[in-house]
This record gives sequence, structure tokens and C-alpha cells, in this order.
Amino acid sequence: MALRIISALALSLVLLGCKEQQTDALPSWNNNTSKQQIIEFVEQTTNSDSEHYVPVSERIAVFDNDGTLWAEQPMYFQLFFVLDQIKKQASQHPEWKNTQPFKAALEGDIATLEKGGMKAVMTLLMATHAGMSTEEFKLEVSNWLSNSVHPTTKRAYTDMIYQPMLEVLNYMRSKGFKTFIVSGGGIEFIRVFSEEVYGIPPEQVIGSSIKTGFSWQEGKPIIQRLPEINFIDDKEGKPLAINHHIGRRPIAAFGNSDGDHQMLQWTDAGKGLSLKVLVHHTDAQREWAYDKTSSIGKLDKALLEAQEKNWTVINMKNDWRTVFPNIE
Amino acid sequence: MALRIISALALSLVLLGCKEQQTDALPSWNNNTSKQQIIEFVEQTTNSDSEHYVPVSERIAVFDNDGTLWAEQPMYFQLFFVLDQIKKQASQHPEWKNTQPFKAALEGDIATLEKGGMKAVMTLLMATHAGMSTEEFKLEVSNWLSNSVHPTTKRAYTDMIYQPMLEVLNYMRSKGFKTFIVSGGGIEFIRVFSEEVYGIPPEQVIGSSIKTGFSWQEGKPIIQRLPEINFIDDKEGKPLAINHHIGRRPIAAFGNSDGDHQMLQWTDAGKGLSLKVLVHHTDAQREWAYDKTSSIGKLDKALLEAQEKNWTVINMKNDWRTVFPNIE
Repeated sequence: MALRIISALALSLVLLGCKEQQTDALPSWNNNTSKQQIIEFVEQTTNSDSEHYVPVSERIAVFDNDGTLWAEQPMYFQLFFVLDQIKKQASQHPEWKNTQPFKAALEGDIATLEKGGMKAVMTLLMATHAGMSTEEFKLEVSNWLSNSVHPTTKRAYTDMIYQPMLEVLNYMRSKGFKTFIVSGGGIEFIRVFSEEVYGIPPEQVIGSSIKTGFSWQEGKPIIQRLPEINFIDDKEGKPLAINHHIGRRPIAAFGNSDGDHQMLQWTDAGKGLSLKVLVHHTDAQREWAYDKTSSIGKLDKALLEAQEKNWTVINMKNDWRTVFPNIE
Repeated sequence: MALRIISALALSLVLLGCKEQQTDALPSWNNNTSKQQIIEFVEQTTNSDSEHYVPVSERIAVFDNDGTLWAEQPMYFQLFFVLDQIKKQASQHPEWKNTQPFKAALEGDIATLEKGGMKAVMTLLMATHAGMSTEEFKLEVSNWLSNSVHPTTKRAYTDMIYQPMLEVLNYMRSKGFKTFIVSGGGIEFIRVFSEEVYGIPPEQVIGSSIKTGFSWQEGKPIIQRLPEINFIDDKEGKPLAINHHIGRRPIAAFGNSDGDHQMLQWTDAGKGLSLKVLVHHTDAQREWAYDKTSSIGKLDKALLEAQEKNWTVINMKNDWRTVFPNIE
């Protein structure tokens, strides 16, 4: 009797094992080329019988954030945070009503802000991202994420992540890959939600940063955020930051814009098999459709090289069954 | 019969489990206070019934390298690398024979080098650490480590690591801790051997760095090392670098000098239980004995605060049964 139970249990375990192997790890993907290329790459690099086998310690996969893991239209979500913070702090800064670029920010005058260019953005960024401790900044971001919704979709920003990419993150991690974010966005901004939303811990988030200082406040050490750029993690900055933070070349890289081009080239130049993926925003119905003429997430040269070299290009409209979680 | 075999197997597994629990995880340590404090901290933070329990994702432990994980006398090992590289490259630089600080470096004239101070060291550092790709630099370090021995002990530098600290690294990792190096030494220098020697992968090594640039050479992208300091990971720099690379406060920190003081203070100021450890070099027989008057690894203020606040102070002579691997 006992033996029959044990045999039944053993059989169940075997069946469960088989069932797991047959489960689709990427259910939100249509069975098109991009899905096949991702799965084929993962299988070739993780099957110990394959000539392309890569040991676990070298299975490094890097992901851009804006436009690759979550949406970035009509502007980067971190810029909505900046504008909301300016409004929130306005009562303590009566002078902002008559000073640019604060005036434009308060009035939602995007045209004037765009005319102000990088200098205007930097001024707003420093007013909202510096002059506080790292702990205080985290709390501001966390509160904002809990209490804000996207202007078009009215969804929380953290619900505007891409379900198919969540599946890729989980699938690759289940195969021994270590997943990193390599973003032009702020490193401490993304870290507030990356672990809960993407399963990526803060130590695996790389991004742009401002300088910090160590000081004492009421007998306690604090890290103060200073109004000075430390590093811009974009274009050439991405492979440099990968080298600095990870110290190893990735074997897989996912991006969506020309800002990711050098990261993909750096990955491509590695010795063994590598995966280079671009998310091409082609779905004006469910998300947005844009590429080479967009001021946000411009995709031009990287797409040309991807087509020329047969990198993986995700056609969002055709390849993704679902875009955002819980919306078919 | 089958059932008896299964029962015997089950019993063996239980016994093996018990045996493992009784095994001493720190066999190179005498049963003194420092060993007890380390084990007690690890048990209190990893036992789910403890009021001090910490989830796995927050079990971050940071370790200084020079003087904490390996020796640092009569000077930092990376400086021996610098001097050896100057000698190796001298034939391509005939002008060095008559130019300081190269002349002193070539003649082994340490007194003149010391008089030249930080400026002399930086000049030598840039001549040997910059002006090449990251790949070329790794190869130089790797070759040097394979072909050099320490002037006093005649052992390979990577054999001058501390056996008791290797046991702490393994013990803490076996309890779910993620171990990081946070060193004043060069980040790309340490990464060459950290994984093989300490089991710490490159992405968990933090250190001082020079700037880098992205460029193309013969159709391939390369990362070039530039002769300009990027970041000095010492004193206040250590908590700042921890915040930048890890994004979480450690709950355990190990150091040996005043250069580690702020890292220990930052760890101590966290909310829950934390472990602050200083390696005190007290063993002139088996290693070196030095503290507040040493120019390398000066330990003065941090030791005073450790004694005052009851941090863990390792007395190398009394607490360590073994210092270097394979030497009793």
C-alpha cells in the first residue's frame, strides 16, 4: 500500500515535470520570429550540450527601461514626476510664478519648456531631485507613484509596464540569467519600484545620476543629493556604465531607441552567441507608434543596423498578444 | 525490503542534516568573542523566528579588501603592480631614466617616491593604468598576478588572502547574504581575481576608478581607460559608492582602517541589527602588527569608536588560528 502511494507520488512528480517543460514561458507573445529568436537564444546558451553553452555566472542580460520595460509617451514618466513636484513645491517658491522654466512648468506650457531645451529640463530636474537626502527622495518618488496616474490611460505608471517583457525577465531568470536595468533615467528613481515591479533588485539597476555628499544631521550620517550631474547613462554612456557596474559584457541586450545603440553594439561585439533586441513601437491602438521622427525614444540608426545584421526586432503590434498587464 | 531501504535513506538524510548543523563554519577561528559575535549576528538575522530576522534580499554584507581580505604590507599590492609595470615598460620610455617619479620607481627608491606624495603616485598610476583598453588592462593584471610573488613571503599575492575571512564570506553566503567588496583599490584591478579567489563576481566589486571612453578600433567597439580620476572609493566615498552601486544600506560591514570608518558608521546607522567588524593587525609573527602610526592601513579613530560602541574587533593574533591558507 505504502509503496503504491510512493509510486503514485513519483509518477505525479514526473508528470508535473513534463507539464512544466511544455508550459509556454512567453504566453503574451504570438509565435512569430522575435519570440522564436529569444527562446532559441536562451536554449542554446543554457543547454549544457550546446556548443553555445554559457556558464551561469556569465549569463548577463541588460534591459533599457523607458520604452523597453514600460511606456515613455507622451513623455518620459520621470518628467511627469518633475512637473508634479514643481507644482507641489510651488507654494514654498513664490518666485517660480515669474521665473522660467518654472513658470512654464507650473502652467503646463510644454512648448516653452521644449524651447528651453536641455538647460530648462536640467534646472527643473535639479530643483526636484537634489537638495534632499536619498531617503527623502525615495519617499517622494514612492508617494508620487502611489498617487499619480498617466494622463492618457489613467492607469498607475507602474501598470504601464509591458506584460511580454515581464515574461522575458522571468523566463531568462528561470534559466539562470541575471537581469539588469541600464537606463537613461535616474538610478535612484527606478530603484524605488524596480524590485517590486520587475523583480530587479536595486543593485542591478544602472542609470543616470547626480553627485552625492556624505554629511551628519542630528548625530546621524546622511547621504545628500547634490545639484550636479554625475553621469548620463545614454548612448556611449551605456556600455561604459555596464563596464563600470557589472564588469562583464552582457550576452543579451534589450532596447528601443538610438540611445541603446551602443549598448547593443557592445553586446554584439562579444565573443560567443549574443542576443540583441529592439522593441519597435508600431501599435498606435494599444500603445503608441513612433520611431525615427520622435523626440522621445527616437529609433533610426539602431533600427537600420538591426535590420542589416538580423538582430531581433519586436513588432509590438504583431508580436505582442497583450501589451499592458490585465488588458487584452 | 524497498520500504526498509527508503527508511534507511531517510534516516541517513536526517543524520547528514544534523551533522551539517554541527560542523564549524569558521574552523580557522578560535572560540573568542569576535567569532561568537559574527555567528550570533548571522543567526539572529537569518532565523525566521528571531525578532531581528532580515529577508534575504536585504542581507547585504560589504568587505574592504586591502588589510581586510588580503594583506597590505609593506605596501598595497596594487602599488607593487604599478612599480613592476613601470619596469616592464621602461624600454619603451628611455626618458623615464631621468624623469621623476619614474626614475625613483625604476631604482626602487621608495624614500623619493614617498616624498613625491600623492602626485607621484598618481603620475605612476596613470602611466600604468590608462592609455589601453579594459581588455588589455585585465590581461596585464592577470599576467602579473600569475608571475609575481610578494617580496617578504615569496608567496603569490592571491595566496596572501586571509583564510578566516574566506570562511566568513562562505558562511555568510551560505546563509543568504550577498557579499560585496568595497575597496579603495582599483575596481578593475580587483575584479580580475575576486571571483576565483573570494567567490565574489565582478558586479559585486566596488572600488576606485578612472574615467573611460567608448571608441572604435578596427571595426570593433572598445572601452578605453583614460588618464583621469573618476572616483576615489575611500572614507566618505565608501558609503557614497555603496549607495550608488548597491542602492541599499548594508547590515554587515568589515574593514581594518580609518578609510573604512564612514562605511561602518553608515552601516551602524541602519534601522535594525547590524554587524560592524574591524580586523586589528596584531600579529607581527604571522603577518604584521600596526595601527595608528602606520602610513598604510592607519587605524585610529575607527578603533576608538569600535571600542566605545562595542563593535567587533578581531585581534588577529588571538582570534585567528590560521592567517593565510595552507599555513598553520
